[in-house]
Amino acid sequence: MARTQGSHAEITGPRIQAAAQRLFADHGYAAVSMRQIAGEVGLQVGALYNYTPDKQALLVSLLEGHMHDLLDTWAALPQTVEPMQNLESFVRFHIAFHMARPQAVFIAYMELRNLTPDNFTRIESLRRRYEDALTTILDRGRASGDFHIDDAKLTTFGIIAMLTGVTTWYRDGGRLTPTEVQDHYWNMVRRAVTA
Amino acid sequence: MARTQGSHAEITGPRIQAAAQRLFADHGYAAVSMRQIAGEVGLQVGALYNYTPDKQALLVSLLEGHMHDLLDTWAALPQTVEPMQNLESFVRFHIAFHMARPQAVFIAYMELRNLTPDNFTRIESLRRRYEDALTTILDRGRASGDFHIDDAKLTTFGIIAMLTGVTTWYRDGGRLTPTEVQDHYWNMVRRAVTA
Repeated sequence: MARTQGSHAEITGPRIQAAAQRLFADHGYAAVSMRQIAGEVGLQVGALYNYTPDKQALLVSLLEGHMHDLLDTWAALPQTVEPMQNLESFVRFHIAFHMARPQAVFIAYMELRNLTPDNFTRIESLRRRYEDALTTILDRGRASGDFHIDDAKLTTFGIIAMLTGVTTWYRDGGRLTPTEVQDHYWNMVRRAVTA
Repeated sequence: MARTQGSHAEITGPRIQAAAQRLFADHGYAAVSMRQIAGEVGLQVGALYNYTPDKQALLVSLLEGHMHDLLDTWAALPQTVEPMQNLESFVRFHIAFHMARPQAVFIAYMELRNLTPDNFTRIESLRRRYEDALTTILDRGRASGDFHIDDAKLTTFGIIAMLTGVTTWYRDGGRLTPTEVQDHYWNMVRRAVTA
């Protein structure tokens, strides 16, 4: 059965993204050439330009794809207005999502410096939308008297950094299961915002 | 007055380190050449090899220097055996130390992947020594009944990630003074380990 060009594009596009992510994570954006990315997926470098205008476009689409995945997956979860439960879902979701994508997380942090100013602004605004989701939960919990926090913005930064840090040490098959890791971190976060 | 070769080395060595740190932070280790580093400090690339055997040696000396600074500065602070005070000093120290060195912190996290296995092991063991300092404080506080924590190792990872995260958003002259940042984070950490 002959493949259409469309099905080629559907298969090759994601393979290019995956190759770029792997190479950027291993060597850093600045050290990776379009030729190397093409080589990884078995394309001539000329053919690679049919899929993406340049390396910057590839980087943005990786970072933007990561942030959209994050926002969409969180938005698709059943939400509750009860602040404590809502915060617990956020904590468990954030750990599970990031644990599954250590490479994407690494690039999202490391390669911000290589974005053009416009692209940086776009990615930053997505990141801010995600942070705002947590800040809103914290503000609601403070208003209801469930949480005792001084500064919802700083608490947001603190919680997100703590949870994302899991990707730097967690290994599959280690001492703790993913659920045990979530349990421990949820205990820390719960205490940090109550008491 | 003629300069001796010794005083040249004393001035040039640190300038090479500073240039390497700046270039690694801006472009990533893999994208930076010895020629670029030499150019930054106004040396011929041949002369650069009088100061360092290769780029890997420069990277290790940056990461090792950072960890030794961290360990030595912490060890030089007046220590107390009172767990709550001890933890508070650790939190304030960690934030102040890292806030002052965002580039070194960035490289210490990002360029671990570019260390040879032996060098990685050396840096990791220094990092573990620092983590152990915090774990010991937490263990003592648990033994004395001051702290309620489930897992001192995970609490160590959580606290260090939360505090180091300050370097990703803190800017001089922003909304909060360094001391206010420390106050907020100390409140979060104190609550996370008590309650």
